[in-house]
Amino acid sequence: MARKAPRRTAERILEVTLDLFNRFGEPNVSTTLIAAELRISPGNLYYHYPAKDELINALYARFERDMGRLLEAAGEVRDVEDAWFFLHSVFERIWEFRFLYRDLNDLLSKNRLLETQVRGLLQAQSAALERLLRGMVRCGSLRIEPDEAPRMATNMLVVLTYWLSYAYVLDPRHALEQEAAQDTMLHGARQVLELLTPHLEAAQRAHLRGLSAAYRSGPADSVAPGQHQRQH
Amino acid sequence: MARKAPRRTAERILEVTLDLFNRFGEPNVSTTLIAAELRISPGNLYYHYPAKDELINALYARFERDMGRLLEAAGEVRDVEDAWFFLHSVFERIWEFRFLYRDLNDLLSKNRLLETQVRGLLQAQSAALERLLRGMVRCGSLRIEPDEAPRMATNMLVVLTYWLSYAYVLDPRHALEQEAAQDTMLHGARQVLELLTPHLEAAQRAHLRGLSAAYRSGPADSVAPGQHQRQH
Repeated sequence: MARKAPRRTAERILEVTLDLFNRFGEPNVSTTLIAAELRISPGNLYYHYPAKDELINALYARFERDMGRLLEAAGEVRDVEDAWFFLHSVFERIWEFRFLYRDLNDLLSKNRLLETQVRGLLQAQSAALERLLRGMVRCGSLRIEPDEAPRMATNMLVVLTYWLSYAYVLDPRHALEQEAAQDTMLHGARQVLELLTPHLEAAQRAHLRGLSAAYRSGPADSVAPGQHQRQH
Repeated sequence: MARKAPRRTAERILEVTLDLFNRFGEPNVSTTLIAAELRISPGNLYYHYPAKDELINALYARFERDMGRLLEAAGEVRDVEDAWFFLHSVFERIWEFRFLYRDLNDLLSKNRLLETQVRGLLQAQSAALERLLRGMVRCGSLRIEPDEAPRMATNMLVVLTYWLSYAYVLDPRHALEQEAAQDTMLHGARQVLELLTPHLEAAQRAHLRGLSAAYRSGPADSVAPGQHQRQH
């Protein structure tokens, strides 16, 4: 066990809260539980975050910042390989903050700030996916009519946003546990890519089939995109 | 106002509960509120349904029965027109019981019976969508590789299952209100059909474009599928 450098309490509170929210679901985690897990007094927790909503908002701000940075790269996607890498990275961010996706509608109905912000994020993601599609068209990897891009981007976004929920319904006891992470994310990225398949240029389509076959045959993490293809 | 025939209390309890769940979300509706809305005593409600979970389970059983009957028709879908009609009908059932979809993960985490049953329903829906795809292939409306059907059915199912959630995130105050029903369902059915578009035979694709254009230009309910095309 490496000795940890001391960290600021506020930061440590956020980390532990994120972990508890992800493990048990935000509705099932009280500030009392958070304080107990941190071994600090409720008063100390209250000093940093006077309400549970402020913890949620602080975590959401972090998620939004990370996702926003990632979305900037959408326009640089040229081919299937890039697209899989990009989508897998989006899933990694979603996975890290999966409590947001687990009970999204409940969170929104209780938190007005989140209501506005999540709508803005979905719009930014939709625009980024349209940029991704147009970039692939420009590079000759994809053939679509210009008016198809918005509807395709919407379907990609719905599958991205709700893939973890869908996996959870099919297997509530395991799908969102840490040991399922690679499998759930790779399967999700593959499903989103499926939406592009019929529009892919022939060599790109063959490449996607090859990547999918490697994913199905080997241990999931041996083909996580970017792990062996991108040693830069 | 037509005079209503007297109805059995148990039935009336279910109807009022469904309406309250849909309007306010299941987590926000207590048995006390249900009894008050029905103008019956909590004891009378308890006599029929000793716990809130039994109300949820009774409503779910009804939803599952209705959806199951509808899914039997999936194999009879021959073309885009049939497919739109079928998908719109699926959305109508989902809309009628939309509280189930609004907080699905929360419901599952609290109710073990539902956990098993919803998984079974998703599997039945997925199988029905595969039958739909294979039927359209058989009738020459659709061209897909046999191994594409399961992944396509999965994406159709994810969009079907989470379309109302997605609409809710984009517009929490209106998307699930009664006046938005036709618009939300038609838009959803159109998005699911989009997944078939690249695989459609040319005349079918043109027909879908025509249907979509009619949907976009007219008042939503004037082109609800099956209303003027199917006067049988």
